[in-house]
Amino acid sequence: MMACNREIVARMQSDVPLIPQLAAHLVAAGGKRLRPLLVLAAARVAGYREHGDDMRHVGVAACVEFIHTATLLHDDVVDNSQLRRGLASANAVFGNKASVLVGDFLFARAFQILTADGSLPVMAILSAASATLAEGEVMQMTTQNDLTTTVDRYLQVIYGKTAALFAAACETGAVVAKADDQTREALRQYGANLGMAFQLVDDALDYAADQAVLGKTVGDDFYEGKVTLPVLAAYHAGDSDEQAFWKRTIENNEEQQDGDLERALDLIAKTNAIDVTMAKAREYAEAASAALDQVSDTCRAVNVDMEPLRQLLKDVAIYTVDRAR
Amino acid sequence: MMACNREIVARMQSDVPLIPQLAAHLVAAGGKRLRPLLVLAAARVAGYREHGDDMRHVGVAACVEFIHTATLLHDDVVDNSQLRRGLASANAVFGNKASVLVGDFLFARAFQILTADGSLPVMAILSAASATLAEGEVMQMTTQNDLTTTVDRYLQVIYGKTAALFAAACETGAVVAKADDQTREALRQYGANLGMAFQLVDDALDYAADQAVLGKTVGDDFYEGKVTLPVLAAYHAGDSDEQAFWKRTIENNEEQQDGDLERALDLIAKTNAIDVTMAKAREYAEAASAALDQVSDTCRAVNVDMEPLRQLLKDVAIYTVDRAR
Repeated sequence: MMACNREIVARMQSDVPLIPQLAAHLVAAGGKRLRPLLVLAAARVAGYREHGDDMRHVGVAACVEFIHTATLLHDDVVDNSQLRRGLASANAVFGNKASVLVGDFLFARAFQILTADGSLPVMAILSAASATLAEGEVMQMTTQNDLTTTVDRYLQVIYGKTAALFAAACETGAVVAKADDQTREALRQYGANLGMAFQLVDDALDYAADQAVLGKTVGDDFYEGKVTLPVLAAYHAGDSDEQAFWKRTIENNEEQQDGDLERALDLIAKTNAIDVTMAKAREYAEAASAALDQVSDTCRAVNVDMEPLRQLLKDVAIYTVDRAR
Repeated sequence: MMACNREIVARMQSDVPLIPQLAAHLVAAGGKRLRPLLVLAAARVAGYREHGDDMRHVGVAACVEFIHTATLLHDDVVDNSQLRRGLASANAVFGNKASVLVGDFLFARAFQILTADGSLPVMAILSAASATLAEGEVMQMTTQNDLTTTVDRYLQVIYGKTAALFAAACETGAVVAKADDQTREALRQYGANLGMAFQLVDDALDYAADQAVLGKTVGDDFYEGKVTLPVLAAYHAGDSDEQAFWKRTIENNEEQQDGDLERALDLIAKTNAIDVTMAKAREYAEAASAALDQVSDTCRAVNVDMEPLRQLLKDVAIYTVDRAR
């Protein structure tokens, strides 16, 4: 991960000073670097060993982080967010223009690095995931304020906006390690299910987080009229009076009043909507863990020392859900 | 070009209906498709012949148009433009969110198509051009409202925002045609110089176009405080009173008053700033034309019937400047 961080800093350089300045703002804000970590971990599970200058997985990991960072920059512009991980967002500091353009730069740079790396399968995975990501974001936009959104549709949205890149990160790790097809598919499934669990928990925390502890703001999704599983669960379980409340506040989020968030939190508690969401997250986390059991016997036989890491990734999946307890 | 248009429409499809809807809005608005045309023309000059299902240059041409369209969508959001080619801009119709995200989608889709095409050199050219494009846009942003911008810096900006993709379009055409290095470089130089001429004329027209004839609005750059060659030429040739006018209006474009555009046009006429700009454009157009003389003898000997097309491209370069007369 230290090599990956160095790669990220080295490859975001540009003769145009504002680009590394803005990018550094996000790097300094200190994300979890979960996606590049997944590339590295998946590569190791699949038997990749660094030797000499063959550190391809580090470059691929940096690209995945660039693609993720580009979408964060664009999301914050699109949502007019003023905060990101508790600090002023890049658009709040540098303006919307710079954020859109530096996002574009990072995306282009990612494909420059991947081209130099030269693996068409890795590029196929990451360009497809990037297109799916954009589709997921557009789909999320069209479900906003829309309480007729089905749970299936919601799950499609979070697959696109989050799980697709998690899946791609794990799959590229497997490809770099030249894993067999079964192991590659197992790791892809792990990433996809982990991403679903991760986003479900994120959506639950938006109505449940202890802000001081988790650095998350409660109510952002509510204020934006986003249709997430906690809202859908509470809405579907509500009586007509409660459904009218959700319609008023989610379908016309700009006309929310003082006390609305408090009532939303009460209704979510009353209908056990957080439990519903967390149960769904746990299903995905368990599927992620189970997927790792599908790593091929051949792969396991060759990489005898990967067992502790595989176990750790199984624990990560479960911890993803338990962190919210 | 008809095959290319079909490819563009086919490849912008998505299960998320808003994506082709928004993309079709831009396609319907009917751009000149100059960049994909350059891919096809360069490929032909370099000896590419379509036969059977080997229509790779068409796919590459569509990708170049996708990359260009993505930047147009983002530019209009960034500049808050309400019009594009005389019609309501995509952001005016579909909103900023959708425009940013569909731009991201088109960019990702371009690299998906290129990955399937499988040419690493083509991908290297287009990913580098995309990064340069974003750098050019950021650079333009930092020169906005800044009258200390040098002419060299301005030329760097227009290379990044326009000429780099023109150069890349021509170079990828040559690569698809498996041209020798000399021919590839000749076509790249043609594109780069043509792009410079094209942008210089565009910047001149912003202060000179007969709106009814060219569908261009006069004064957009002025209202935005953009520092282009017509402004720099008029500013540098102006007396202290005139320089004070430019400082007030360009450095604080939001405080422009009624009559300011008219005075700007008068000062530009008085200082022959349009002539200065057009003379520079003509230099580049002539360099573009001359670059085509560097197409290798080997290439010319093999492709005896490319001579009329090569001559046409030379004429295009000169016409790029003469269209403004």
